[in-house]
Amino acid sequence: MDYQAESIKKHYEWKGKIEVVTRCPVETGEDLSLAYTPGVAGPCLEIQKDLNKSYDFTRRSNLVAVITDGSAVLGLGNIGPEAGMPVMEGKCALFKKFGNVDAIPICIRSNDVDTIVNTVALIAGSFGGVNLEDISAPRCFEIERRLKKICDIPVFHDDQHGTAVCVAAAMINACRLTGRQLGELKITVNGAGAAAIAVTKLLMKIGVREVIMCNSKGIICEGDERLNSEQAYMATVTNLGHIRGSLKDAVVGANVFIGLSAPNVLTGEMVATMADGAMVFAMANPTPEIMPDVARAAGAAVIGTGRSDFPNQINNVLAFPGIFRGALDVRASDINDEMKIAAAYAIAGIIQDSELSSDYIIPSALDERVVEKVSKAVSEAAIKSGVARI
Amino acid sequence: MDYQAESIKKHYEWKGKIEVVTRCPVETGEDLSLAYTPGVAGPCLEIQKDLNKSYDFTRRSNLVAVITDGSAVLGLGNIGPEAGMPVMEGKCALFKKFGNVDAIPICIRSNDVDTIVNTVALIAGSFGGVNLEDISAPRCFEIERRLKKICDIPVFHDDQHGTAVCVAAAMINACRLTGRQLGELKITVNGAGAAAIAVTKLLMKIGVREVIMCNSKGIICEGDERLNSEQAYMATVTNLGHIRGSLKDAVVGANVFIGLSAPNVLTGEMVATMADGAMVFAMANPTPEIMPDVARAAGAAVIGTGRSDFPNQINNVLAFPGIFRGALDVRASDINDEMKIAAAYAIAGIIQDSELSSDYIIPSALDERVVEKVSKAVSEAAIKSGVARI
Repeated sequence: MDYQAESIKKHYEWKGKIEVVTRCPVETGEDLSLAYTPGVAGPCLEIQKDLNKSYDFTRRSNLVAVITDGSAVLGLGNIGPEAGMPVMEGKCALFKKFGNVDAIPICIRSNDVDTIVNTVALIAGSFGGVNLEDISAPRCFEIERRLKKICDIPVFHDDQHGTAVCVAAAMINACRLTGRQLGELKITVNGAGAAAIAVTKLLMKIGVREVIMCNSKGIICEGDERLNSEQAYMATVTNLGHIRGSLKDAVVGANVFIGLSAPNVLTGEMVATMADGAMVFAMANPTPEIMPDVARAAGAAVIGTGRSDFPNQINNVLAFPGIFRGALDVRASDINDEMKIAAAYAIAGIIQDSELSSDYIIPSALDERVVEKVSKAVSEAAIKSGVARI
Repeated sequence: MDYQAESIKKHYEWKGKIEVVTRCPVETGEDLSLAYTPGVAGPCLEIQKDLNKSYDFTRRSNLVAVITDGSAVLGLGNIGPEAGMPVMEGKCALFKKFGNVDAIPICIRSNDVDTIVNTVALIAGSFGGVNLEDISAPRCFEIERRLKKICDIPVFHDDQHGTAVCVAAAMINACRLTGRQLGELKITVNGAGAAAIAVTKLLMKIGVREVIMCNSKGIICEGDERLNSEQAYMATVTNLGHIRGSLKDAVVGANVFIGLSAPNVLTGEMVATMADGAMVFAMANPTPEIMPDVARAAGAAVIGTGRSDFPNQINNVLAFPGIFRGALDVRASDINDEMKIAAAYAIAGIIQDSELSSDYIIPSALDERVVEKVSKAVSEAAIKSGVARI
């Protein structure tokens, strides 16, 4: 199927993928007097006395803003705020379907970091959380960091952390399956954008020690002046052997390849130089870094991609609905590392030891058990780490 | 009934008065491929080529942002952005119920004019229209004026123009009932805030010539340095006889009293000094400038208030749902005077000559015929005045 052409046809029919509906009766004059004036002055005055009451009296308790500037939409690049909105509405539809989270898309007509930070901070009182989406690196790092500092609600850049949580879940289960420890793996990450950096950071937080990152110019080394500040930081915590070279050099002897980069950049020959029982996560979309059959023929033991038509799809929908559901359920002020790690283990834990196989290390994106397990784990982690507010 | 106490109870039950739901199927993997990746790239690229396509492919075509800074909420004053949100959600519920318009509430954590203008302009690409709400005067005038200039979607401050349209409709029908012309009426407007000024301006656009405005200090005169810039302008087009004095002086011989001010400021004695067959619109909420029975006993022939428990309720819900419905239906770039005037005559026209009476000059807020008539008239006026875009 030509998905894009068919999708255009469907979008003409749908006239928008989300809609706002009313939860209160507005049929009679008395209904109006309670939902609106004069009665509504009551809840207004309660909130004025105690801002926390806004979670009781408005939809804030269940409402997330999905915010983009349209600068890194899918693989399409900087297509502009309005053009990014079909993706944002799709995301909102997934939030509702999988997490029962109300989400509304907002695009910002600026690519300036200060402007985006200020705009989101100014409207943050309207929502219970902010999901940043499809904002290009390295701006996305600073935007998220600054927003997390100044907002009293969770701010979560899904392209970074949703991906990181799912990859971590896959890695946890790949280790369960193969009897390995995360700390003993040599991992090569290809790509040095938002997702690749977040994945690497989260993996290191759960025990991974040895990572080499590559960008399109080759292995990332300390002192390379072409790196942006985030990559420069990563260069200080990865590639501790100070190896120089290309991706080809980086994968020799590696246990794991993680690709968040470009189509067809990993060859079978390169996989053949990896350690025995190699794990290959080739997540470029729609065409992965290496096709699964090629990787398998070259000796890969566990293979994952971003695609639903191959086994082991690494799909953020496993993570963000449950993470926000869990955060909203306890009015969390943040989505912190503890909560992300809890989400990764919860996703991994869906699959029983007896079910684990090289073609089933991560649950299906449509597995309805996921959101409940993830949200519960995330709520608990929020409480334990002190960011819950109920 | 203690509406505020009961409303608090209801708000605890409702957990928000609006909710976001999904309009597209998201059950199967193929559903996801069309509503989200990879198919969604199709509509995204179409919008990138032609921004107007955002109205076809996203909910923008039916979506209005209800925006406040919480500075003039109901009669409660500057209670803050979050505390204003129950009103905004109520407004959104009314938008849906009466106009089938999707509306989402956004509060801005600033009272600064530049900041509010910039914030709204930056997110305007997400919506088909902006309804400004409960922003205090005189800031609301500049905010609206500047936003109308820089935004390519309608920006409408309902406290001003919704009220103006409804009062104009009531005046049109009061004239039909009493066989008078708007141009022959002497009108006293008490109040010099956002609504009072907008009402006066719109009435003058449909034929009213003689107005005296009062604020809490008395009659507004040219040269008074205590006036804000908008009041100073009004002083140049009203009170052409340069009368000085108090409200008591202003109503002597007047045909019409329009109150958008404070409780109980108009006495029966003052009404008795008005011209025969006086019309009294006492719209302070919840306690009007004069109670209807007192006004009637003092000789008023036609009486309206803001309250649903008296005849002739002047309620903005008669105007804003149909005005936005009509604007959205033709993708209007603005809501201009022509459209407001069309709305006023459409509301007035609901009532047939044979039905008109001193207790029925304005339709009920719950009259389901209103929105259709208003939206049709507004769409036509948009087309005729050149702001429609389909």
